[in-house]
Amino acid sequence: MNFGFITYIIGWILNFQGIFLLVPCIVAMIYNEKSGIAFLLSSFISFAIGALFVRKKPKNSSFYAKEGFISVALGWIVLSVSGALPFLISGEIPDIFNALFESISGYTTTGATILSDVESLSKCMLFWRSFTHWVGGMGVLVFVLCILPLADGNNMHLMRAESPGPSVGKLVPKVRSTATILYGIYTALTVIECILLLFGKMSLFDAITTSMATAGTGGFGIKNDSMASYSMYIQNVVAIFMFIFGVNFNIYFLLLVRKPKEVLQSEELRTYLAIVLISTLIIGFNISSSFESIGTSIQQAFFQVSSIITTTGFSTVDFNHWPELSKFILIGLMFIGACAGSTCGGIKISRIIIAWKNLKNEISSFVHPKRVQIIRLEGRKVGNDVVKSVNVYFVLYFLIFIASVFLISIENRSFETNFTSVIATLNNIGPGLDGVGPMENFGEFNPLSKCVFMFGMLAGRLELIPMIILFSPWVWKKSRSHSQKSLKLTA
Amino acid sequence: MNFGFITYIIGWILNFQGIFLLVPCIVAMIYNEKSGIAFLLSSFISFAIGALFVRKKPKNSSFYAKEGFISVALGWIVLSVSGALPFLISGEIPDIFNALFESISGYTTTGATILSDVESLSKCMLFWRSFTHWVGGMGVLVFVLCILPLADGNNMHLMRAESPGPSVGKLVPKVRSTATILYGIYTALTVIECILLLFGKMSLFDAITTSMATAGTGGFGIKNDSMASYSMYIQNVVAIFMFIFGVNFNIYFLLLVRKPKEVLQSEELRTYLAIVLISTLIIGFNISSSFESIGTSIQQAFFQVSSIITTTGFSTVDFNHWPELSKFILIGLMFIGACAGSTCGGIKISRIIIAWKNLKNEISSFVHPKRVQIIRLEGRKVGNDVVKSVNVYFVLYFLIFIASVFLISIENRSFETNFTSVIATLNNIGPGLDGVGPMENFGEFNPLSKCVFMFGMLAGRLELIPMIILFSPWVWKKSRSHSQKSLKLTA
Repeated sequence: MNFGFITYIIGWILNFQGIFLLVPCIVAMIYNEKSGIAFLLSSFISFAIGALFVRKKPKNSSFYAKEGFISVALGWIVLSVSGALPFLISGEIPDIFNALFESISGYTTTGATILSDVESLSKCMLFWRSFTHWVGGMGVLVFVLCILPLADGNNMHLMRAESPGPSVGKLVPKVRSTATILYGIYTALTVIECILLLFGKMSLFDAITTSMATAGTGGFGIKNDSMASYSMYIQNVVAIFMFIFGVNFNIYFLLLVRKPKEVLQSEELRTYLAIVLISTLIIGFNISSSFESIGTSIQQAFFQVSSIITTTGFSTVDFNHWPELSKFILIGLMFIGACAGSTCGGIKISRIIIAWKNLKNEISSFVHPKRVQIIRLEGRKVGNDVVKSVNVYFVLYFLIFIASVFLISIENRSFETNFTSVIATLNNIGPGLDGVGPMENFGEFNPLSKCVFMFGMLAGRLELIPMIILFSPWVWKKSRSHSQKSLKLTA
Repeated sequence: MNFGFITYIIGWILNFQGIFLLVPCIVAMIYNEKSGIAFLLSSFISFAIGALFVRKKPKNSSFYAKEGFISVALGWIVLSVSGALPFLISGEIPDIFNALFESISGYTTTGATILSDVESLSKCMLFWRSFTHWVGGMGVLVFVLCILPLADGNNMHLMRAESPGPSVGKLVPKVRSTATILYGIYTALTVIECILLLFGKMSLFDAITTSMATAGTGGFGIKNDSMASYSMYIQNVVAIFMFIFGVNFNIYFLLLVRKPKEVLQSEELRTYLAIVLISTLIIGFNISSSFESIGTSIQQAFFQVSSIITTTGFSTVDFNHWPELSKFILIGLMFIGACAGSTCGGIKISRIIIAWKNLKNEISSFVHPKRVQIIRLEGRKVGNDVVKSVNVYFVLYFLIFIASVFLISIENRSFETNFTSVIATLNNIGPGLDGVGPMENFGEFNPLSKCVFMFGMLAGRLELIPMIILFSPWVWKKSRSHSQKSLKLTA
C-alpha cells in the first residue's frame, strides 16, 4: 500500500476543501452574518492540515486499484468531517453526530436532514448545505484530478472508484479532459436551471441553492416544506431538471459532438424514459382523487417520480399519505435510481438492464445449455467481469441493506420507518416513508442509527466497493508482489 | 419438447394422487364423517384422468433438463388442482380460489390458510391438509420416481428440478435408491416425533397430523391458536423436530453409515446451528419482559426461531406484538430458510454461504486481480456453474419478490402486510406480520392477490426456475437439435 501517495491526495482534497469553505464567506458578507467566521476558521484548519500533508510529493508514484479505492473512501470521509466543522464551530448544529450527518448527507447528495426547522439556519449555512450537494454530485476526486498533475493511469483508478455505474468509459482519450468536459456540462446545466428559475421570479439566493441541490440530485431544501410553496412553473422547472440530471452525462457529450442517432438508440435512456412515464401515469391516476384535476395529479406525480428516481428527494406534497400502490412504486424507484454516469444514487438502470439480460440468458441456458449467449448494452458487448461485478454489487447491496435495517430496528420504530430510512440513505435519496417521510426528519434517531445512516450514505454514493474495501480486514493483508499488478480497466 | 413423456409422468402423478386421496377416507370412516365421499369422488376423478394419460407408454424416451423442469412445474399444478377437489366437492371450502390456495399452501408446505376458524373443518379435511404437507415436503416427483421404471438420467432431471438447494447430490450411485433412502429417513423421523408426542398425552389424531405438518415443515395447525394451547413438553418436542427437519437429510444418511466426523465438519450444519442459537438468544432477551422468567422467554424464542427458519410456521405466541428487533430477526430468518436438502423453503443456508464466499473473493479480486480463488463448500470445490446459478437465483428471487409486492399493494393494505405476506408465501412459511400475523389469515385478500400468493408458493417450493421456465415464452421457442443435449449434472 502506497500510504505516501494516499496522504498526498488527501492533503490536496483538504486544500480544495479550504477553497470551498471560503465560498460561503461571500454569502455571509452579503447578508452580514457572523457565522461567516466559522467558515473562515474551518477553511484555515483545512488549509493547515492540507499543507502539512502535501509538503513533499511522494517519490514512489506506483498507484493501483487498491490505492484508488482507499483514497476515494478516505477522501470522502475527510471531506465530510471537515465539511461538518462550520456547523459545529458556529453552533448552528452543536451536536457532533448531527453535524456530521448533515455534512455527509450534503456531500453524498442524499439530502436527508436532522433539522426540524431548516429556515432557522443562517443564509451562509443554507448555501453551504446546497453547495456540498453541488460539489459531491460530480465527485470531488474527479475535480481534484482535473487540476492535479497525476499520471493518466492513476487518474483512471480514482475515477473508476468514484464514478457511478457498472463501468466507466472515457469520452476522450485523456482522463483529465474527460473530467473537464463532464464538469463543463454540469456547470452549464446548473447555470441554465438557475436562469430559468429566475424567470419564475425566484429570488437569486433561492435560485442558486435550488439549482445546486438539483444538479447534485441532493435535495436539501431551504424551506421547511421543501418545494411545496413555490409556483407551479418553478416546480415544473425543478422537476424537468431533476430528470435531466438523471441522464448519463455521456448523452450530453454525444449531443455536443452532434451524434443524435446514438442518443436515440441508448437503451438506458429509453428505459429511463419508459420507467418515468409509466410510473407517472400509474401514480397520477392512483392519486387523482386528492387533486382538483387529472392534470394537476399527473404534474404532482411527475415531480415526485422525477425527484425519487433521480434520488434528489425534493417534495411538493406529503406522499406519506398516498395509497399503498403509489407508495410502493416510489419505493421501487428509490431502489432503481436513474442512469449510470449521472449524479444520481441507487442501483442505476444500466446495472438493472445487465442483470436482467444476464438472467434471461441464464434461464434459457437451463434449457439450452450449449447455446453461447452474449450480453450487449448500447450495442457493445458487456464483458464477463462487468456481469460478475454487477452480481457482486447486488449481493453486497442486499447484505448491507439487511444489516442496516437490523441495526436500525434496535430503536423499535415502525417497520416502514426502519425499512425506508435505510433505503433513503443507502440510495442517497433523503426522505423515506412514515417516520422519515417528506415532512419528517432524522434528528430523533440515536447515535448508533445515525452512524449506520452515515455509513450507508457514503457506501451508497461510492457504489459500495470503496467503503467495503476500507473496512475489510482481509483486503489489508500484505499481498505478494505479483498480485500488485494494475487492474485492467473496463473501457 | 417431448410432450408424450411429460403427459405420461403427469398421468402417473394423478394415479398417485388417486391413492393419496383414499387415505383421508379411512379417517372419515373412523369419525363417521360424510365428507369422506368427497375424497372418494376426487380419488375417482384423479384415477380416471390419470388412467387416460398413462394408457400407452411413449416410444420416445429422450428426456432432458427442459422436460424435467416442465414436468415438475406442471406436475405440481396438477397435484394442487386435484388436491383442491375435496374442499370444493364437500363444500367445506366452497370458493374456488380459497380451495386452490389451501391446497397449494398444503403441498408447498407453506401452511398459510384462508380459514379463520380451522376447528370447524371435519377431521378428514384436517387430516388431508396435514397429509398434503407430508407428501409435498419430500417432493412428489421424487416419490413417483421411487416407483416408476424410468432411466436413471431421466430421474436425475426430475430430482434436480424438484429438490431444494443449489446442487443435488446422489447419496448412492442410483437415483432411485437415493430417493428411497431419503423417504425412509423422512418416514422414520415422522414416526419418532409422533411417538414422542403421544408420550406427551397428545391424542393420536393430533399427534399424527402435527407430526406430518412438522415433517414437511408445513405448519397447518388443527387448532385456531396453532400450538399455543399445548403443553410445554409438546411445544418443545415440536420445536426440536422442526429444527431436525431443517437439517440436510444427507447428514442423517452420514450418521446412518457412521461417518460422524463428516457430520461435525459440515459448514452448513454449523452455520444453521449458529444462526438458530444467536437468534434465539437475541430474541429471548429482547422479549424477556413479557414472560415470567428468562427460561420461558428463551423457550418461546427457540420455538419461533425454529418454526420460522425452517419455514414451518407453527406459532405459540402472537409475535406480531414483539419488539421491532425481534420481528426483524424473524423476517431475516424467513428469507434465509434452513439447510439445502431438507424439507424447508426459503433461500437456504448453503446458497447464502456460497454467495458470501463468492462475494469475499470478488471484493478481494478488486484489489488483487491476479489471485485465483476457488470456492469450497463442505470441503468440495464449488463449480462456476453452481456459483452462477446461485447469483441467478438471487436476482430472480429479488425480481419475483418486488413484482409480487407491487401487485399486492394494489389492495392498499399496510406496507408491513404487503411485504411480509409475500415473504410468507414465497418462502413457504405461512404467517407473516401485521395483517397476515400468526393470529390472522389470508381469506380477506382479493382473487388477484391470492393468485400472486399461489404463484409465489409454487415458485418458492420449486426454487423458482421450473415455474419461471413454464411461464417464459422465450424458453418455448423451438431450438436447434444440437442444443438438445442433456444438461451436465452437478454431482
